[in-house]
Amino acid sequence: MTHPNLTRLKGQADAAIEAFLKQWPESAGDGLYAPVHYLMRLGGKRLRAVLALSAAEAEGQACDVAFPVAMGVELFHNFTLMHDDIMDAAPLRRGKQTVHIKWDENAAILSGDAMYTLAHIALAQLPAEGLPKALRLFNQTALEVCLGQQSDMAFETRNDVTVAEYMEMIRLKTSVLVAASLALGAISAGASKERVQLWYALGEELGLAFQMQDDLLDAFGDEQVGKQLGGDILADKKTFLRLYTQENGGEAAQVMLAKWDGQRHDAPAKIEAVRAAMSAAGAADAARELMHAHVAKAMASVEALGLEGNHMDWFQFLGGMVTQRTS
Amino acid sequence: MTHPNLTRLKGQADAAIEAFLKQWPESAGDGLYAPVHYLMRLGGKRLRAVLALSAAEAEGQACDVAFPVAMGVELFHNFTLMHDDIMDAAPLRRGKQTVHIKWDENAAILSGDAMYTLAHIALAQLPAEGLPKALRLFNQTALEVCLGQQSDMAFETRNDVTVAEYMEMIRLKTSVLVAASLALGAISAGASKERVQLWYALGEELGLAFQMQDDLLDAFGDEQVGKQLGGDILADKKTFLRLYTQENGGEAAQVMLAKWDGQRHDAPAKIEAVRAAMSAAGAADAARELMHAHVAKAMASVEALGLEGNHMDWFQFLGGMVTQRTS
Repeated sequence: MTHPNLTRLKGQADAAIEAFLKQWPESAGDGLYAPVHYLMRLGGKRLRAVLALSAAEAEGQACDVAFPVAMGVELFHNFTLMHDDIMDAAPLRRGKQTVHIKWDENAAILSGDAMYTLAHIALAQLPAEGLPKALRLFNQTALEVCLGQQSDMAFETRNDVTVAEYMEMIRLKTSVLVAASLALGAISAGASKERVQLWYALGEELGLAFQMQDDLLDAFGDEQVGKQLGGDILADKKTFLRLYTQENGGEAAQVMLAKWDGQRHDAPAKIEAVRAAMSAAGAADAARELMHAHVAKAMASVEALGLEGNHMDWFQFLGGMVTQRTS
Repeated sequence: MTHPNLTRLKGQADAAIEAFLKQWPESAGDGLYAPVHYLMRLGGKRLRAVLALSAAEAEGQACDVAFPVAMGVELFHNFTLMHDDIMDAAPLRRGKQTVHIKWDENAAILSGDAMYTLAHIALAQLPAEGLPKALRLFNQTALEVCLGQQSDMAFETRNDVTVAEYMEMIRLKTSVLVAASLALGAISAGASKERVQLWYALGEELGLAFQMQDDLLDAFGDEQVGKQLGGDILADKKTFLRLYTQENGGEAAQVMLAKWDGQRHDAPAKIEAVRAAMSAAGAADAARELMHAHVAKAMASVEALGLEGNHMDWFQFLGGMVTQRTS
């Protein structure tokens, strides 16, 4: 499943970011920029940058007008990964050592701060007329992403997290930046306030759908790709599936989940048992339903934006990609 | 030694910051903002905010026009303290527990990121016409402050740091933000590019003089206030005084410094011996000379700005305060 925009716009985003970062070479600054180059070289879909460029094109402008915001959201996203990986004590990112492991925590903190600053330097390249509006949205979004990470960490030590709280957490941690990416692309292209809001709503729904699919793939991904996953289950992570099962699975499900909490000795048995409880509670069906509902709302925004031809096709493809992706 | 502007402008800055932060109460955001309120409540001179307000007034505007930049530089400065204290493993800040001790490292990382974002939210309250110029300077300054901290950390494991490298490090770590505070205040008041550059130069020189005095006070403060200090000497910190002594004190001084490196068992003897070596090498005189030279350059900017009456008095007072302060 592919679309020409995927490679074309990712290529544009990668080239813009590479040219931008050349101003701060890896060898300069006593090593301050080396972790920035390293993390960006690890790759990634550049989804947020691609979305910013897509919105600008759909608004009838060359994608170049959105380079400042595309670089801004992508650098910001990767900065949050650098700091989140410290907080989550994550050893790996995209299969490679995380920055705080390859260097140390201090490097990950300080180079992360520098990377956040570079995101702002990129954003500030916008022409003056769009800058105040873009900045307001970018800053608001950055604060919400911090709030999302704060909630995510607070959830780890709580036993009473609700599905509603989880949905708000992933909205803050994931969706608002996807939403802002589209909205900032539209702002760069000079779109009206009303259209910027529609782009934002589109991204917010896409982001929520994406996260639902993430939860599903981890627990039930093998149904589609024949691959055993279950990392979230093994880590007792409070995903939608788990919280829904706790809320709707009755006492039997709660006993089952509690029994396996903290157990690591028999991974396949734990995954099978918890998956069974999730299925019995209707959590997988509920997640799929929710995912499709969010994609439908996203497509309603595509409709309201009156996109035509290639632009319409491309955003429908993106919606389909969320629900049909297998990794 | 006091001046009515000290209390008046600090009061204005404190009130503006307090009103601004009320939008993100301590109890909100799952605790994300609590460390921000805590650190700001620990006090401090609010020097950077006061300078921003002073420049706006000297440019003939009410100090209110500089509230966005005054809050921006002050929140940014305190954000760097929050992250630096993690990196330096500092237990105390202004006599109280640092954020990473009172909470934990994750809280200090994430609330620091939020605080940096709040600095940007404050700055973005500037009217649109001054915003691009202010942002460019603010972002450039932020990156330089990161570079200064990176150098400072790199120096710890190097034995070949020169006086020149040290001066560049403190310029980046300290002076550029003092300089930017004045320049941003002037930008807020609509000053010309030429005048903004003079304000920047004034602040850069003041900042360097301030740091020289800091080094002197730690090693020789008791000459003025009868108080034994010497924390930098005990920690073998690569200050101007130490580096100058290494470069100019000959072999005897180098042997003396090497002999005491890492020694903590007899603090008074170590401090006395190292101070003697510093004095013999002429380091204290050189530091005083350099400090006065930087203040003189700062006053040349005051002259070039053509400040009159109260404004002239106030900046001369600030210059005198740097060289005559005793704590």
